[in-house]
Amino acid sequence: MGWNSWDCYGASVREEEVREHAKYMSKNLKEYGWEYIVVDIQWSEPEAKSTVYNDFYPLNMDEYSRLIPAENRFPSSKDGRGFKELGDYIHSLGLKFGIHIMRGIPRQAVHQNTAIKGTEKRARDIANNDICPWNSDMYGVNVDMPEGQIYYDSLFELYASWGVDFIKVDDIAHSKLYDDAHKKEIEAIRNAIDKTNRPIVLSLSPGPAQLKNGSFFQDHVNMWRLTDDFWDSWDALYKMFDRTAEWQSFVRRGNWPDCDMLPLGHIGIRAVDGGGGDNWTRFTKDEQYLLMTLWTIFQSPLMYGGTLPDIDDFTLSLFTNEEVLEMYHTITERRQVYRDKEWVVWQAASTESEFVAIFNVSEDDLNLPENLRSDFVGKDTARNLWEKKTVKVQNQKIHRHGALLLKK
Amino acid sequence: MGWNSWDCYGASVREEEVREHAKYMSKNLKEYGWEYIVVDIQWSEPEAKSTVYNDFYPLNMDEYSRLIPAENRFPSSKDGRGFKELGDYIHSLGLKFGIHIMRGIPRQAVHQNTAIKGTEKRARDIANNDICPWNSDMYGVNVDMPEGQIYYDSLFELYASWGVDFIKVDDIAHSKLYDDAHKKEIEAIRNAIDKTNRPIVLSLSPGPAQLKNGSFFQDHVNMWRLTDDFWDSWDALYKMFDRTAEWQSFVRRGNWPDCDMLPLGHIGIRAVDGGGGDNWTRFTKDEQYLLMTLWTIFQSPLMYGGTLPDIDDFTLSLFTNEEVLEMYHTITERRQVYRDKEWVVWQAASTESEFVAIFNVSEDDLNLPENLRSDFVGKDTARNLWEKKTVKVQNQKIHRHGALLLKK
Amino acid sequence: MGWNSWDCYGASVREEEVREHAKYMSKNLKEYGWEYIVVDIQWSEPEAKSTVYNDFYPLNMDEYSRLIPAENRFPSSKDGRGFKELGDYIHSLGLKFGIHIMRGIPRQAVHQNTAIKGTEKRARDIANNDICPWNSDMYGVNVDMPEGQIYYDSLFELYASWGVDFIKVDDIAHSKLYDDAHKKEIEAIRNAIDKTNRPIVLSLSPGPAQLKNGSFFQDHVNMWRLTDDFWDSWDALYKMFDRTAEWQSFVRRGNWPDCDMLPLGHIGIRAVDGGGGDNWTRFTKDEQYLLMTLWTIFQSPLMYGGTLPDIDDFTLSLFTNEEVLEMYHTITERRQVYRDKEWVVWQAASTESEFVAIFNVSEDDLNLPENLRSDFVGKDTARNLWEKKTVKVQNQKIHRHGALLLKK
Amino acid sequence: MGWNSWDCYGASVREEEVREHAKYMSKNLKEYGWEYIVVDIQWSEPEAKSTVYNDFYPLNMDEYSRLIPAENRFPSSKDGRGFKELGDYIHSLGLKFGIHIMRGIPRQAVHQNTAIKGTEKRARDIANNDICPWNSDMYGVNVDMPEGQIYYDSLFELYASWGVDFIKVDDIAHSKLYDDAHKKEIEAIRNAIDKTNRPIVLSLSPGPAQLKNGSFFQDHVNMWRLTDDFWDSWDALYKMFDRTAEWQSFVRRGNWPDCDMLPLGHIGIRAVDGGGGDNWTRFTKDEQYLLMTLWTIFQSPLMYGGTLPDIDDFTLSLFTNEEVLEMYHTITERRQVYRDKEWVVWQAASTESEFVAIFNVSEDDLNLPENLRSDFVGKDTARNLWEKKTVKVQNQKIHRHGALLLKK
Repeated sequence: MGWNSWDCYGASVREEEVREHAKYMSKNLKEYGWEYIVVDIQWSEPEAKSTVYNDFYPLNMDEYSRLIPAENRFPSSKDGRGFKELGDYIHSLGLKFGIHIMRGIPRQAVHQNTAIKGTEKRARDIANNDICPWNSDMYGVNVDMPEGQIYYDSLFELYASWGVDFIKVDDIAHSKLYDDAHKKEIEAIRNAIDKTNRPIVLSLSPGPAQLKNGSFFQDHVNMWRLTDDFWDSWDALYKMFDRTAEWQSFVRRGNWPDCDMLPLGHIGIRAVDGGGGDNWTRFTKDEQYLLMTLWTIFQSPLMYGGTLPDIDDFTLSLFTNEEVLEMYHTITERRQVYRDKEWVVWQAASTESEFVAIFNVSEDDLNLPENLRSDFVGKDTARNLWEKKTVKVQNQKIHRHGALLLKK
Repeated sequence: MGWNSWDCYGASVREEEVREHAKYMSKNLKEYGWEYIVVDIQWSEPEAKSTVYNDFYPLNMDEYSRLIPAENRFPSSKDGRGFKELGDYIHSLGLKFGIHIMRGIPRQAVHQNTAIKGTEKRARDIANNDICPWNSDMYGVNVDMPEGQIYYDSLFELYASWGVDFIKVDDIAHSKLYDDAHKKEIEAIRNAIDKTNRPIVLSLSPGPAQLKNGSFFQDHVNMWRLTDDFWDSWDALYKMFDRTAEWQSFVRRGNWPDCDMLPLGHIGIRAVDGGGGDNWTRFTKDEQYLLMTLWTIFQSPLMYGGTLPDIDDFTLSLFTNEEVLEMYHTITERRQVYRDKEWVVWQAASTESEFVAIFNVSEDDLNLPENLRSDFVGKDTARNLWEKKTVKVQNQKIHRHGALLLKK
Repeated sequence: MGWNSWDCYGASVREEEVREHAKYMSKNLKEYGWEYIVVDIQWSEPEAKSTVYNDFYPLNMDEYSRLIPAENRFPSSKDGRGFKELGDYIHSLGLKFGIHIMRGIPRQAVHQNTAIKGTEKRARDIANNDICPWNSDMYGVNVDMPEGQIYYDSLFELYASWGVDFIKVDDIAHSKLYDDAHKKEIEAIRNAIDKTNRPIVLSLSPGPAQLKNGSFFQDHVNMWRLTDDFWDSWDALYKMFDRTAEWQSFVRRGNWPDCDMLPLGHIGIRAVDGGGGDNWTRFTKDEQYLLMTLWTIFQSPLMYGGTLPDIDDFTLSLFTNEEVLEMYHTITERRQVYRDKEWVVWQAASTESEFVAIFNVSEDDLNLPENLRSDFVGKDTARNLWEKKTVKVQNQKIHRHGALLLKK
Repeated sequence: MGWNSWDCYGASVREEEVREHAKYMSKNLKEYGWEYIVVDIQWSEPEAKSTVYNDFYPLNMDEYSRLIPAENRFPSSKDGRGFKELGDYIHSLGLKFGIHIMRGIPRQAVHQNTAIKGTEKRARDIANNDICPWNSDMYGVNVDMPEGQIYYDSLFELYASWGVDFIKVDDIAHSKLYDDAHKKEIEAIRNAIDKTNRPIVLSLSPGPAQLKNGSFFQDHVNMWRLTDDFWDSWDALYKMFDRTAEWQSFVRRGNWPDCDMLPLGHIGIRAVDGGGGDNWTRFTKDEQYLLMTLWTIFQSPLMYGGTLPDIDDFTLSLFTNEEVLEMYHTITERRQVYRDKEWVVWQAASTESEFVAIFNVSEDDLNLPENLRSDFVGKDTARNLWEKKTVKVQNQKIHRHGALLLKK
């Protein structure tokens, strides 16, 4: 559970914004379990302005072909201090610090043939001609060579020295261009993290990850994306019922298939993807309940994408409902048990309780059908977790695109 | 765990052969947990001779468009008694009775437009133009019509009256022609079984089932095939390491992804698939240990395909090792934890014990590498389940295509 | 050039309707080169009512497993006379007679195991399990057996005896289910036609045929379909610019890639495909000019799908413009020479003249751009074939979805 | 017809080698119509050694982001003279000069953000993130921007100033990575060539080009490759019967689908592709006759890949047979007319003569079957073009993988 800078700032977040969000989280959300503050893509790019990348622009890089923060955007990184100070600050608030990186080695390093820490080989020697199709920063690393692994080791040594607790590696869980995950580089990154002896959460992007790689992801990483970038449209949300059902058997402690960030609240400050521009989420309140219900009963990672300092009460209420969060943290089984064109039902269980989530995916407000009640709820009354009160289940009205989350 | 007639007799098994195998199983294997006797495909076809189907030949059928046994092959089925007497006999031996069916309704019923039990509609009305590409017996059933469900209900009512405990439905888990499972008909069959109030195990063929349907299979059926027909060649066996790793997260009580029959012992009496002809399995002894180790640690269903009356001691020993079978029955977790070009390692755990299986998939006899021992076995000695003795693990020689199965 | 019963009557045309259309054609269109009268699909099906097929219904069949006309629909076919009388009538009007058949042998013949003329083998022996996915009448014929060829020979012997001049074989040029043409059966049909010594035009359906089979089609058949069934919508028409450009190199004397029937005039009398119902074409007049211009400059076969007895003057004018038809008959080269989002230009040449067709595929009425005029027309004035007058080319207005057809 | 440096020297040919081959051609082959001398890939790379590319190595480039020859390999190019002197020399021998280029702009230009001639925009501005998957020299050019076209214009202005008569553009006719031709850049190159007012032959690589783009290629280029790189193996040669049959309808004056270079004679001097190393062609003499027969009757471009100075008499005889070359130059129609598992037959016609080529594609020496003789040759005697004498056709023996080329 945490906050990520992408949905608000695209590639352009600045240090003061990060600090502001960390401060708010520490004060208002930490007690509910929210703890990660993640700086998303292209923190090395001095000219980044939005979610659009400046192709082929120079990035800030150290002498060993490793990207470091752009000093104009992250003043505390001056003099080669990297993210150390920002990390320290976040830790001082009782929170954890995460960063985003792209798979590979900077193309500028390869064409300048710069040095690699720990080996005589240079950038040109360890690069291969695998690219990311949507971002021009990096080349792939040839990890069949020992020096390729050495390069990844040098990266994670640096990140560990900054106090990084969470890393989101991009262009790696699925490549449309090459139609697979970059598995060799995932293994190399797993090895590099293990060598740091620091418990860094490993999260892979982008999706949709392929089911055939599910066991491989379970063995190597903590989170992996089930979808393309998720934004605030019902179509995208509705598709998540397919994705979560397909992946439900892969959820287990330490392996959290990832439904992507929560595009709720105030988003798009400097983003032109999704709805395109500075706005409040386009999801209705019912859709937001439905979304949070699906994410929590599936136990997806929860990464908020909106602003924190000016968050409104409703959005905040979605993140601070103790009863929902207790379910989220304690369940050990979960699965979709019913689906038709109007309804989807999930059940979950912790060692002590059973939960049922009933989603109205139709275009109309509907009353809960009696057969769904008797098959999946059984009882006449149950605890409504969002409302924090016991309700009569029979004939409950559920709004279009809404959800009912019950503890039996 | 049981015996299936296909690997020996193809489509042509006869009643006396079934009874003979049942008698042997009851006497020699029942105590080890072997209990199902399954009559495979085309028991309605009077002229069936081998694994090759006679396209478009008439099948034995009752007045309600339901296939019934060919009387020349199953004499006890005379006078409309179906498999009742054979089922009774098998039950009298303390065993369970299984049959194979094809998805759909006989094409001959459709072209003769015969009656359906329980409705005025006739065969032509409920058929659709979906076919099986490799067998010409049936058309698909349109289960969007209530009368389609009524037809399936009438089938399972009949099978339940025969005392069927296990049903293998074919041309349904995956169709190469239509590139998917026939999900609607799977749902209809699930419903039809539930209505019988008889606990019939539902097994689907053929494979390879698709991972995207894994959750669907878990919700509807007990077993589903991971592969095409499996025969006695190393190439086919080696591919099972891919399949089992991909499907391991879908194994749970009541859901057993199926590695297909065991083509061991004396097979091919009247089969021309696989090795093609009456022979003993082409697997080496080491490959047989490896196969049984993978099938048991993955908890695949075990369906023996060879003959029983003339089974040899070695083959019998594979099915009657109490220590291996105890692992097979008690483990609640299992997964592949390592793979390279020479070695595959699986681990499993019951509430009381931990197990590790180490497979040499190379072309050479090899000693167990020390890093695999220390990473996955840990200890210096461990129980070798196949040898039923405690062994020194260090430097154990494992033959090419062989396996070591240890309890830690 | 001819008339085909599908767009008006689907599978249900009756003899008197065919005769009526033949009479009209003979009187009004023959002089312009229109000559084929084609009875489309399922003339053997007594119950056919529209474009929807009655799955698995019995068809009228002779003693040799060959379909013959349904007598209730074609009274002159009584007493085994088949289409002989209808063919004679059409010939008596100076026209030519065509029929439609499905690839294969009737399923009812296979399940009844009826005789084949000229061999001891029976229907069951020569059938294979290849089906048409959208019509349940036939099985494929195994032409690897000599008796498969004998069956096709017996079919074409019958058709030749009826005086058939044109045959449209369906489910053969492309099968979505099997993702290819049924090439072996095309070869068998080619052989069977050659043996009749009657010059029968061979036309294959449905499309889209695959380019990789283009040379094969040129070697074996006269016409083959480039598209799925073509109906009266702009989307379908616009796609023909892709199809015709891709196939233009395959047009040559005796090989006419086929853009499908002309859904013009009064159509859908008993058809529920396309616009769905009895109506006049949904194409605007401009779209009809554009369609006729593309079909004629590409030299597609022209098969009118609408009614003839009540045809209106405008539609008639499209089929009786001598200048357009002269181009259609005399050009020996043709190709698309320009395309952008608003304009498509084709050029063609006969030994004596040059032609240019300029299509406005945009959504607005536009004036002809000067660069297109100078590049492709050159001159200031040219003969407008549809208007049959010489026009000033500069700045000609061309309506949205309209076309200008010029002789230079 | 010409010579290309790839099959002998890979990416590493040197000026003196080019001059030597030009001299030989002028003296011995020019009279037979051989005239192009083509310097293949990476003439800008100082370190190129073979057919293996040095990934990411610096290339020789001018101030306008245009690649120029490596001076160590092409001494006459010193002082910015480019290929002018070499071109002049080749012209002085009465021959024509060709070069190879990769689609796009050098990656080193993009990362250094160098200037573009004729615009204020720089390399970074006009590059896009499309790459060649098998060579790391270039990025694609964004020709949707006018400045992208300006860059291509500046390239061809330079090549025209060098006297280039033939250009082979690579990574453009088909990209496996992007599964299509790079059509926009093909259009830009076509435009750039037209602006030079020099008649430069445009040849596109690599194959296999897709049939759906056939019309597009006809409109824009002179030659395009039907295959991957073609080397001296029977499997590769046999596949050309598929390719040529599929493409035969696209051959016309100015449009020559290209079967690739002739890997005959002494090849592989500094190449490690194909047979791998310095050797004489692995084709048998019969296979060489067959190859030359197919290439000439299909009218593929003929580009010899072996060495010229030490060419042997047999190889030379393949290129200097006046009767074969007369057919090659004069035929206006050609097509495959027969194919089974043992035989392929092509026919061709010029305004004056008819030709037939009969290929034995079986693994045995065979006599010409009488039906092929009567169907395709007709006569009892005919001119054997390779033997330059009239032969009795009946029962002619044709060796395995051999061909008979006759003038009727």
